[in-house]
Amino acid sequence: MPRGPSTAILTAGKPHAFAGVFALVAPHMSALDEFLQEQLAAFEPEIRAMVNYCIHTSGKRIRPALVFLSGWKDTEAVSPDLVRAASIVELVHLATLVHDDIMDSADLRRNRRTAMREFGPTAAVLLGDALFAHALHLAAEFPTTDVCAAVSESTRRVCAGEIVQSLRRRSTDLTQADYQRIIDLKTAELFRVSCYLGARLSGAEDGYVSASDRFGRHLGIAYQIFDDLADFFGQEDKIGKTLGTDLASGKLTLPIFELMDRLAPFERAELSEEIGGLRPARPELRLKQMLDLGVFDAVEAAVRDEVSAASAALAEWPGRPPTAHLLALGDVLLSQVAMLRPAG
Amino acid sequence: MPRGPSTAILTAGKPHAFAGVFALVAPHMSALDEFLQEQLAAFEPEIRAMVNYCIHTSGKRIRPALVFLSGWKDTEAVSPDLVRAASIVELVHLATLVHDDIMDSADLRRNRRTAMREFGPTAAVLLGDALFAHALHLAAEFPTTDVCAAVSESTRRVCAGEIVQSLRRRSTDLTQADYQRIIDLKTAELFRVSCYLGARLSGAEDGYVSASDRFGRHLGIAYQIFDDLADFFGQEDKIGKTLGTDLASGKLTLPIFELMDRLAPFERAELSEEIGGLRPARPELRLKQMLDLGVFDAVEAAVRDEVSAASAALAEWPGRPPTAHLLALGDVLLSQVAMLRPAG
Repeated sequence: MPRGPSTAILTAGKPHAFAGVFALVAPHMSALDEFLQEQLAAFEPEIRAMVNYCIHTSGKRIRPALVFLSGWKDTEAVSPDLVRAASIVELVHLATLVHDDIMDSADLRRNRRTAMREFGPTAAVLLGDALFAHALHLAAEFPTTDVCAAVSESTRRVCAGEIVQSLRRRSTDLTQADYQRIIDLKTAELFRVSCYLGARLSGAEDGYVSASDRFGRHLGIAYQIFDDLADFFGQEDKIGKTLGTDLASGKLTLPIFELMDRLAPFERAELSEEIGGLRPARPELRLKQMLDLGVFDAVEAAVRDEVSAASAALAEWPGRPPTAHLLALGDVLLSQVAMLRPAG
Repeated sequence: MPRGPSTAILTAGKPHAFAGVFALVAPHMSALDEFLQEQLAAFEPEIRAMVNYCIHTSGKRIRPALVFLSGWKDTEAVSPDLVRAASIVELVHLATLVHDDIMDSADLRRNRRTAMREFGPTAAVLLGDALFAHALHLAAEFPTTDVCAAVSESTRRVCAGEIVQSLRRRSTDLTQADYQRIIDLKTAELFRVSCYLGARLSGAEDGYVSASDRFGRHLGIAYQIFDDLADFFGQEDKIGKTLGTDLASGKLTLPIFELMDRLAPFERAELSEEIGGLRPARPELRLKQMLDLGVFDAVEAAVRDEVSAASAALAEWPGRPPTAHLLALGDVLLSQVAMLRPAG
């Protein structure tokens, strides 16, 4: 008998948003780790140690879990196709992280030196490329070109989103529509393709594949908004990164948009200058203002809207094996948002 | 009636090694340019201008020409499959150039600002990724996964070669075997896959595909050795780059190995220090020594050996339509090497 979402939610208070539901796919995640480890042999001997360093992250493996959950079949049997697809989306994700860390000159990720710091920016650029190339090579091992097509298109969209975000950094004329577009591309796209691949490779009919795809996209948007809120309200030791980094680096996110809307003109001008890098960012002040002016509530509502849209995508498919587990992910995400709210 | 290699060689004195033979595939190259231009629409609107900048290079398009020539059919008809494959290898090549220029902090390539200088290193990392992703997306448009598999594996090997080269820069314990391995991966691999794809997609039998593949690999090695020689002996205005950059940047190439072998111990130690960056490089002195000590001859012989190996791969297939044109490429390369030798 399958373990249902109710069990999953009980363990929601873990260090990352989806830990509870992920317990369901623990055997799949082990298979994923094993499969990724086996892939080392496919890389040229000279770069194996570097690839090994990259794949052994304490990462959340959210995208692989989405593949497994959206391809769920009420059995604990682990499908090799899903393991392969999960590895592909994870390798693409790891490649983008390696490249992101170069661009951000990041020293640490998940309490460990980034590939950039460990091997230098030059090797890191190429290492990201090699990870991505191998992901596509795995995609080419499926009998048809569908997976290659889906993954390569997604990757291009993820990159486009990150380019736009990077070029618009410190730009104070970014609109909320621009922000939506950026997170749709840079985050929702890989969530979407993960749910698409899971459903497709588990043999679901077109209608469910399409529903799973839409679910993944909205969950991805919701997750990124949660992540942007956590950038201000997360506990540093939990998330393993400095808080308020988006503001300090001039990245406009939904919490900042919502705050901007609520400030008096003079204060708004000051915040704009912080985003534009014309004066030092004051994350503590902004955090207090966000609480006082109802920004937290507004952002929480935005996450809820996206989770609702995600759920709505599955509304016509209540009895399918993956549906309950996918819906549980939305619930867990909402409970994680609630937990970000400071006590008192 | 097909234009043969003899016509081709007549125009060999052009700014790049293969210009003559490439005249044969001029209509194919136009189709390539048109196809690449059409691809812009597939990229997200926000990054189209950047992609457009990258694809409009005055690049030599050697790899696409190899696709067309190895798929040659004694007719001027342009095969859409070959145009697609040529675009794929060119996009992969352009992506690696974009990433190379970041790592080298290069300002100019082919007398134009690099993508790195034009858009910044962050956008350039992602732009390279997007170009590569789109190449794989085009590969997924073939009916089977063969092209995806070949291109993604090649790309991983190219990256591995560049990582090794980059990590071993200024390392004076690099062996000639290491150098062979690096150029086999970073350069010969894409030449090889271009010749493989051309033959395969034009419907050649397995034996010829394999021969074409081996031809491409050896031609690629020969080409890289030529390029390394041209780094010392090329005319700056012809090649459009500063001479002696390999030595100055601590990159050990065949001309330097051959020189090292011929120097007295004390002089050898000094050259090692130049490679290691412990003293300023003296390219003029090294160039004179190379001529005096027979290095030019030795490197020329190495190119000839690789061209011979390339030709030998096709020895059993003299009557195939591509064979004469591919062999002509080897001859043209040798004549270009000869032209590097300073007069008098």
